[in-house]
Amino acid sequence: MTGTAERSWWGWGTTDRALSDDECAAAGALLPGLPDRPRPVPALAELALPESRVSPPSSLPLSRSVPDRARHTYGKACRDVVRALSGNLVGAPDAVGFPRDERDVVDVLDWAGSAGIAVVPFGGGSSVVGGVEYRGERPWVSLDLTGLDRVLEVDPVSRAARIQAGALGPVLEDQLRPHDLTLRHFPQSFEFSTLGGWLATRAGGHYATLHTHIDDLVESLRVVTPTGVSQSWRLPGSGAGPSPDRLFLGSEGTLGVITEAWMRLQDRPRSKASASVTFREAGAAVDAVRAIAQSGLHPANCRLLDPGEAELAGTSTGEWVLVLGVESAAHPVAHRLDELTDLARSCGGAVAPRDGGRDAAADTWRTAFLRMPYVRDGLARMSAIVETFETACTWDRVAELYATVGAEVGAAVREVTGGPGRITCRFTHVYPDGAAPYFTVVAAGRPGSEVAMWDEVKTAASEVLGRLGATITHHHAVGRDHRPGYDRQRPEPFAVALRAAKAVLDPAGVLNPGVLIDPV
Amino acid sequence: MTGTAERSWWGWGTTDRALSDDECAAAGALLPGLPDRPRPVPALAELALPESRVSPPSSLPLSRSVPDRARHTYGKACRDVVRALSGNLVGAPDAVGFPRDERDVVDVLDWAGSAGIAVVPFGGGSSVVGGVEYRGERPWVSLDLTGLDRVLEVDPVSRAARIQAGALGPVLEDQLRPHDLTLRHFPQSFEFSTLGGWLATRAGGHYATLHTHIDDLVESLRVVTPTGVSQSWRLPGSGAGPSPDRLFLGSEGTLGVITEAWMRLQDRPRSKASASVTFREAGAAVDAVRAIAQSGLHPANCRLLDPGEAELAGTSTGEWVLVLGVESAAHPVAHRLDELTDLARSCGGAVAPRDGGRDAAADTWRTAFLRMPYVRDGLARMSAIVETFETACTWDRVAELYATVGAEVGAAVREVTGGPGRITCRFTHVYPDGAAPYFTVVAAGRPGSEVAMWDEVKTAASEVLGRLGATITHHHAVGRDHRPGYDRQRPEPFAVALRAAKAVLDPAGVLNPGVLIDPV
Repeated sequence: MTGTAERSWWGWGTTDRALSDDECAAAGALLPGLPDRPRPVPALAELALPESRVSPPSSLPLSRSVPDRARHTYGKACRDVVRALSGNLVGAPDAVGFPRDERDVVDVLDWAGSAGIAVVPFGGGSSVVGGVEYRGERPWVSLDLTGLDRVLEVDPVSRAARIQAGALGPVLEDQLRPHDLTLRHFPQSFEFSTLGGWLATRAGGHYATLHTHIDDLVESLRVVTPTGVSQSWRLPGSGAGPSPDRLFLGSEGTLGVITEAWMRLQDRPRSKASASVTFREAGAAVDAVRAIAQSGLHPANCRLLDPGEAELAGTSTGEWVLVLGVESAAHPVAHRLDELTDLARSCGGAVAPRDGGRDAAADTWRTAFLRMPYVRDGLARMSAIVETFETACTWDRVAELYATVGAEVGAAVREVTGGPGRITCRFTHVYPDGAAPYFTVVAAGRPGSEVAMWDEVKTAASEVLGRLGATITHHHAVGRDHRPGYDRQRPEPFAVALRAAKAVLDPAGVLNPGVLIDPV
Repeated sequence: MTGTAERSWWGWGTTDRALSDDECAAAGALLPGLPDRPRPVPALAELALPESRVSPPSSLPLSRSVPDRARHTYGKACRDVVRALSGNLVGAPDAVGFPRDERDVVDVLDWAGSAGIAVVPFGGGSSVVGGVEYRGERPWVSLDLTGLDRVLEVDPVSRAARIQAGALGPVLEDQLRPHDLTLRHFPQSFEFSTLGGWLATRAGGHYATLHTHIDDLVESLRVVTPTGVSQSWRLPGSGAGPSPDRLFLGSEGTLGVITEAWMRLQDRPRSKASASVTFREAGAAVDAVRAIAQSGLHPANCRLLDPGEAELAGTSTGEWVLVLGVESAAHPVAHRLDELTDLARSCGGAVAPRDGGRDAAADTWRTAFLRMPYVRDGLARMSAIVETFETACTWDRVAELYATVGAEVGAAVREVTGGPGRITCRFTHVYPDGAAPYFTVVAAGRPGSEVAMWDEVKTAASEVLGRLGATITHHHAVGRDHRPGYDRQRPEPFAVALRAAKAVLDPAGVLNPGVLIDPV
């Protein structure tokens, strides 16, 4: 899927899929108040980067080239894209590490620890929360793990594989396909993010119910910490003390560098079917999704789009749309899909006619879903603010959350931008006890002020989430941007324990300083 | 279910279900070399306990009565029962705390911390791994939490409830029943263990697939640590840093005392069906169970009994028996059961005829399952050694594990007891990537030496598990008895992190010293 196309250094994905200047202008024309033409993309060769402050031994696989450093300066949030487009790369890493094996990871950490250098692990670099940039004063190295990209071992009986953490989604799936197995973890960033990144950030997959978080797919982890390598046993389940893996899952590179994991796999699905259901009222739509989430039917896909989101995806006019999908490697799924649509219908939904098992709205939605980040980048070149934030809360608060975000974040958008903007919402994942609403904000920005404007809107959004007890992040992770919200949410005794763990595992404070924990 | 029957102070469950002297003798007659009559049960009033070494302030809800102290001296392993029967209560707690609210918990911890007293949290006291006794030199208090037994809040929309940690299984289910909801977590100890105990030990429920561990049913936890109260947010899912709850789940009272949890509930099942399948060969039986575990059909019950286990349960002669159960609150289950039995048949199983949805073997097995601990106690009075150990490993190692345990633990039993003994096995839980085999050892002991004999057999068993990379415990927890196996299994960097967390949360080392972590 990544093939040979060149990765964009400033924006999402590959350069061949970026919007052309004319496409940018056309997209921007839909928002009043934007410039007529997109700002240019600076040429990599012309970027002015600060001088590197490190002199690594030549035995270490470190690069100080401008293109390598530029590509590893930011993640891929809207604010990252805007800063890159402006040519502002003042915080670029002093060097980029490209370990070829675990020994290299150990050596880079040892060298960095002794030289007072910070190390920020970098998988696919798709963080949208400031997880892969450094905001301190020390020299720093971005540690790009994509050279560790092999499936080392496959156990077809237990359906599990030992996979190096730097494997991008398509790279690991390509190696599993000959075994007729799949990890079946498809976050929106699938093409441009790695197993290690998913593990370090507790990523959410495409699948809407049951095992949606990567956490549940982990059999064991191998983690290089500055004070030693942690290797847990391959176990299907255990009650032996607190789970060692769960401490490293979500640790975002602050406790160690994940180098390998034994992951639970699945047979490749043989039967798939999808359907879409429309609702006139929010209440009925939410009730239907809740009934499905609580039914034990476990659809593979169960995404609810509000009318604005459905319009963005090109699938509806004024109604809520529920996209349902079922799949199985072991048994026929048509009956299961009927049970699901029956439930949705009993809550007041209108089931769209299906053609041969596939639903047109589901396909349209999937195409739009994968295209969305490229459109965002095109709009960023037009000085539009296009950004998302996501959360999760229990069902008893879902309606209030949706309404309050609409009202308060809407007001913030109007105040900050002077225009109406728009806020749309989909539920990306549903649980028996709650849902994960995912909001998209689109508004006209002022050239040069986009980052500050978005930060104001984001502060308003985080305030609503915190007040309503909704998580600061369901699957985007904490990084640096979510620290205030995370600190509010995290129980203080756990913070104390995490800081103590960090102090003994990473006494020099080398690893990803500022993420989750204040730098020492 | 517990009703008004008196709890046994020395053995499992309630006194009315204990075997009579004649029943003990009859059970013992099946094992050659045992005495003719059971040893007597010492009278509580006649026990000689060491003098209490503590003088708590009268404001604290602490008892120093002999019956209270005797009842809280041991858990309910075979070695506990044998020690209690011998009248050996030299390690009895100096006092027993009966907190009426969370404030009492805080006050007892504060007092203990300032007075150099150890505190061992005690739920139902059903630990079979030495989790509720103390083996150090300090004065100690057993903190009995069963006074905190209320369901404080029910959220029927999200299907969740806030429940105090000291509620025994039937006590909390009784309070949920009027809401037509259930926690649906039924470990074998259900009647005699508490929510807090399940959480602190990562208990496994009766349900054999999907959400079997209590971990997955937790929405949020409230934990009193010596340095503050930890309260996580109610969330259906989150990617905000490492899960705070997962650090306390399985912490076995070493980091804090769990006082409340918001737990995910389910609708009470309306349709149930069960079936049993027999296999002549171990290979076919294991293949069938694996196929089912990997099918995505998620049976509620999926227990495989080896021929010896089936015979113990009174359901078979010489064959492997697979007991399958399905249940749902939302949809009919007969079709699902057919899919499961078809799979089992395709692996070479013979499906027993069913009568009206219920299977006779399944019912027989359940009755035997609940009766088993009482039989064990009766046999313990006859100086027999009846004990279990359990583990989990990936499917690729299951056959080897089964064979090696049979050979090596069998040899240890013969060497230690001089008789053949018997080792039987069932798979209590199955996962897509592995199974949890549960072994039962029955052998004739020598009066006065049963504990030492069992400890030798257990050492041999733990050695096999460790060598094959199988967990030292799937759901019995670590306690004190599993420390060597746990230390072997636990990655050292995680041990370092856990000790650091303990040092900051419990600086005086008050909580359950010796469990998971060496006492300071």
